[in-house]
Amino acid sequence: MNVTIINIGDELLIGQVVNTNASTMSRMLTMAGMDVSKTLVVGDVYNDIWVAVDEALRDSDAVLVTGGLGPTKDDITKKLLCEYFDSELVESQVALDNVKRIFESRGYELTPVNRAQALVPRCCEVLNNDLGTAPCMWFERKGKVLVSLPGVPFEMEWLMRNRVLPKLQETFKTDIITTKNILTQGIGESFLSDLIEPWELSLPDNIKLAYLPVAGLTKLRLTVHGNYDPSVLKGLYDLAGQYIVGEDCETLDELVHKTLTERGLTLATAESCTGGNIARLLTAQAGASAYFKGGMVAYSNEVKESALGVKHSTLETHGAVSEETVREMVEGVRTRLGADLAIATTGVAGPDGGTKEKPVGTVWIAVADATHTEAKLLQFGANRRQQNIDRSTNQAFAMLMRLVVK
Amino acid sequence: MNVTIINIGDELLIGQVVNTNASTMSRMLTMAGMDVSKTLVVGDVYNDIWVAVDEALRDSDAVLVTGGLGPTKDDITKKLLCEYFDSELVESQVALDNVKRIFESRGYELTPVNRAQALVPRCCEVLNNDLGTAPCMWFERKGKVLVSLPGVPFEMEWLMRNRVLPKLQETFKTDIITTKNILTQGIGESFLSDLIEPWELSLPDNIKLAYLPVAGLTKLRLTVHGNYDPSVLKGLYDLAGQYIVGEDCETLDELVHKTLTERGLTLATAESCTGGNIARLLTAQAGASAYFKGGMVAYSNEVKESALGVKHSTLETHGAVSEETVREMVEGVRTRLGADLAIATTGVAGPDGGTKEKPVGTVWIAVADATHTEAKLLQFGANRRQQNIDRSTNQAFAMLMRLVVK
Repeated sequence: MNVTIINIGDELLIGQVVNTNASTMSRMLTMAGMDVSKTLVVGDVYNDIWVAVDEALRDSDAVLVTGGLGPTKDDITKKLLCEYFDSELVESQVALDNVKRIFESRGYELTPVNRAQALVPRCCEVLNNDLGTAPCMWFERKGKVLVSLPGVPFEMEWLMRNRVLPKLQETFKTDIITTKNILTQGIGESFLSDLIEPWELSLPDNIKLAYLPVAGLTKLRLTVHGNYDPSVLKGLYDLAGQYIVGEDCETLDELVHKTLTERGLTLATAESCTGGNIARLLTAQAGASAYFKGGMVAYSNEVKESALGVKHSTLETHGAVSEETVREMVEGVRTRLGADLAIATTGVAGPDGGTKEKPVGTVWIAVADATHTEAKLLQFGANRRQQNIDRSTNQAFAMLMRLVVK
Repeated sequence: MNVTIINIGDELLIGQVVNTNASTMSRMLTMAGMDVSKTLVVGDVYNDIWVAVDEALRDSDAVLVTGGLGPTKDDITKKLLCEYFDSELVESQVALDNVKRIFESRGYELTPVNRAQALVPRCCEVLNNDLGTAPCMWFERKGKVLVSLPGVPFEMEWLMRNRVLPKLQETFKTDIITTKNILTQGIGESFLSDLIEPWELSLPDNIKLAYLPVAGLTKLRLTVHGNYDPSVLKGLYDLAGQYIVGEDCETLDELVHKTLTERGLTLATAESCTGGNIARLLTAQAGASAYFKGGMVAYSNEVKESALGVKHSTLETHGAVSEETVREMVEGVRTRLGADLAIATTGVAGPDGGTKEKPVGTVWIAVADATHTEAKLLQFGANRRQQNIDRSTNQAFAMLMRLVVK
């Protein structure tokens, strides 16, 4: 079963916003065992949308369309689909009740413009959008399905998860799919692939393996059609156990968040070259205050001394980017903020600031608990500031997880 | 002149990576005065790419294709284009010299696989890719243009700026375009639109205005075909000057970075609800160490006391999310880190932690210099944690800019 995604909106074609809807929807569909064969973006232009819908229905089993469902005049998707499917607009009681509920909960008066949002083509089925006033519409014709969703990312995602994917699975009778993520770190994708080849070759036919590398981390994703037997992972652990940091999370920050929450351990951070990126990834997740005590972004040497207690002599003798400094940073922040665990980073993120001994991309990372401190030197490429920050961040999370699990 | 963008890659169709190439290219083309009518993503599948290229050349003046140019077997773009344009692969001296130069600079031996990267269809022109080994290929047929670029974002961006856009402008004889950004904050898009309507209506025909709202900030972008007269902005400042934070930057963090660097002012941050987001946005930019002293991510009350010097009695009497606390945070961090300026944030980011008096979305922000402290209460929606963080961040940057300019 294959799917085409069409995202509608002028704002996408002028590059104002990045089209995260396409990747979110692609990931969700792939994890549900469906193949996305094409995604495309068209503007709020009647003819362009018509042609895109027409060609997509010709080429795929299902077409998912986002955008153009707002109450303003440049939102033309509903009218277009009504004409495309040769139908007429009627007021949907389901959609009207939903609009009314949302307006009431916000204490607003229902205006005619908003009431018009409950108008839908007679031939479609309304899938209730609990989070917004735009209706989600399901069309069927000649064994093919078209679904029109709002373009607001959190509404789209909720509708995909709770309405659209279950109904697609039911309609196309797709297999039951289990996905299993295994996060590895400290080994490149191609080396990992060589290392685990015997295991990969032994996988049963109903399991597909994908390598998803990002910023120093390689995520292995198993997509299982039908029955999943967890013992299948034993062979993987035998071969590559030392590189496996955790399971069942999409990212390392999610894994750290989950693990520290479950174990009731607290964390403090002292960031130089990562500049707050570690703290913001953790605090972007709801509930971080349960374990995250706080952090220092110690960019200058003065701050490393005054706020973290790094010794002046250490900075003078060894420099800010050194094992001695990163160890004093991690121990300083852990003690000063009274946390069980700590992370510290210091390095030359680039593009400037490198020297012959410490070129751009030189990074020291340390993690500590009450009894152990571990420090590690990394050497990344020059001129890739953001990548160096992202890789340092993932390395720090992986080292923390190893310390916690040990 | 209109353009279709085709991004090739299985990794985009399974949602492994977000397709930032489409938005980067769309923005660059739009700012150069060209219309992007459609963008699409297809997998590494011969027939799908062929159909996409064929339909795109039918519908547009120029087609830009990224991806599928690597040395491995699933990279099929070059072979396909060679057949599509009825040509044959020949070794390009320009491309070979480039591959050799890059391998020499990295100290690697040139392998046959890499030498094969210099093979290109005879009918194309090679645009030299200074940053990578994959050639950029320019094809012309019947007044239409197809350009094949590598999918690596920084190579693609460099090639667009230095090779592709100039050649497109020359080929299609497009107007000289000036773009001018004006950043406004503190007023919603629709209110701003009403306020500046008289000015907008008075704009000459060669100037197009776009509203680009993101996280509490509305960027006005003027696209000027031909001569740009800066005095055109006077009418805008007369009507909406109080909401204008700056010009000629894409984002507020870029504006803060530029302004503090130019003026030689230093900054410290004390973040609670924004969790390090302010620090990481500034330190993501090269050269931030010139002005950014450091920051505290003060998530717990203990850290607000010990690291920032917020009084215990203040936290007890007024709570962590209060004007009194945010003022002590901003003054504490500025003094302790010895900076000219400081920013502080404290709030309930959600989804939990709200109370009746301080519901989720309640945020206090303060900025300070040596003589002034300004604090502001914001009230954002519930259940939108990331949006609350982003809006608080932009609000803080805007308040800082107003303080600096004053």
